[in-house]
Amino acid sequence: MRVMGVDPGLTRCGVGVVDGAVGRSLALSGAGVVRTGADADLPERLLGIEHGIEDWLDRYRPDAVAVERVFAQHNVSTVMGTAQASAIAITCAARRGLPVALHTPSEAKAAITGSGRADKAQVQTMVARLLGLDAAPKPADAADAAALAICHIWRGGARDRIAQAQQDLARKVELARRTRPTPETPGR
Amino acid sequence: MRVMGVDPGLTRCGVGVVDGAVGRSLALSGAGVVRTGADADLPERLLGIEHGIEDWLDRYRPDAVAVERVFAQHNVSTVMGTAQASAIAITCAARRGLPVALHTPSEAKAAITGSGRADKAQVQTMVARLLGLDAAPKPADAADAAALAICHIWRGGARDRIAQAQQDLARKVELARRTRPTPETPGR
Repeated sequence: MRVMGVDPGLTRCGVGVVDGAVGRSLALSGAGVVRTGADADLPERLLGIEHGIEDWLDRYRPDAVAVERVFAQHNVSTVMGTAQASAIAITCAARRGLPVALHTPSEAKAAITGSGRADKAQVQTMVARLLGLDAAPKPADAADAAALAICHIWRGGARDRIAQAQQDLARKVELARRTRPTPETPGR
Repeated sequence: MRVMGVDPGLTRCGVGVVDGAVGRSLALSGAGVVRTGADADLPERLLGIEHGIEDWLDRYRPDAVAVERVFAQHNVSTVMGTAQASAIAITCAARRGLPVALHTPSEAKAAITGSGRADKAQVQTMVARLLGLDAAPKPADAADAAALAICHIWRGGARDRIAQAQQDLARKVELARRTRPTPETPGR
């Protein structure tokens, strides 16, 4: 499974593409940032983000996209731009019919370090370790995007297992129903 | 000049298309809302906004798009969705090479009522009056979008006059320079 993680931002939008599956080793296919100039106006910047994300999707063709969930509580000065950049990334993926998942920074940190309150250095150390690299991708936004992708591969795996278990259960119930038919419930 | 105003929102994204120019009468070409279901997930909703806005742009082919500027201070529970819907509208317009302007709610209110703190009823009364209608377009989001479009036509007009005055001045300076050449400034 190939997942593209996106750490949204107007100035630096982190992107990290990771291949892997639950219980298998992970590999980084690509990581970097889509940049737009702080001197450009908002329409130009959003268009720049769109072109950049489209380019990553064209080059790496992921199976799913994981975008950081943005909260209004965070850093008020940049949160609007972050929300807007995330909307562009989500829409680019949805337009292609790709599944899009939103994970909070805490979920990503907890997935790869075991703690939702891990600091930047700890996240980067674990990103490098899990991907079998000497160092985490640079800049930090690219490493955070890779962390989101890893989080999604692992959480997606967990969700898949729950879905599988539910299907198995449904199959057993169906089988039981067929082999031992229940009497008709009398109408009211 | 035809301006499409957009009052962004995930549940109801207001759209109002107004034809007019400074000093001429205004006319409403169309007004309504792009709706997305609160039960749908975010990627689906953003895609719905994109399809809706594209449809309005295709049908009305405006010369410019005016989108409400969103502030992080406002209503925290809905501001993220509003910011994300605005990003989609801005990008749809920018992708077509249309000029996009952002106006604050206060600017729109001040433009059409004379007060940046006018209430909803006052805005709707003036939208109806300025557009020569018996009543403002419904729902309120459509009327707010029309107010943004009117604001843009009038402010755009003011900007055009300033730009024209600057060009006139530059032309006079150039003419003066040519008719009475200044002596060369000695090099240091």
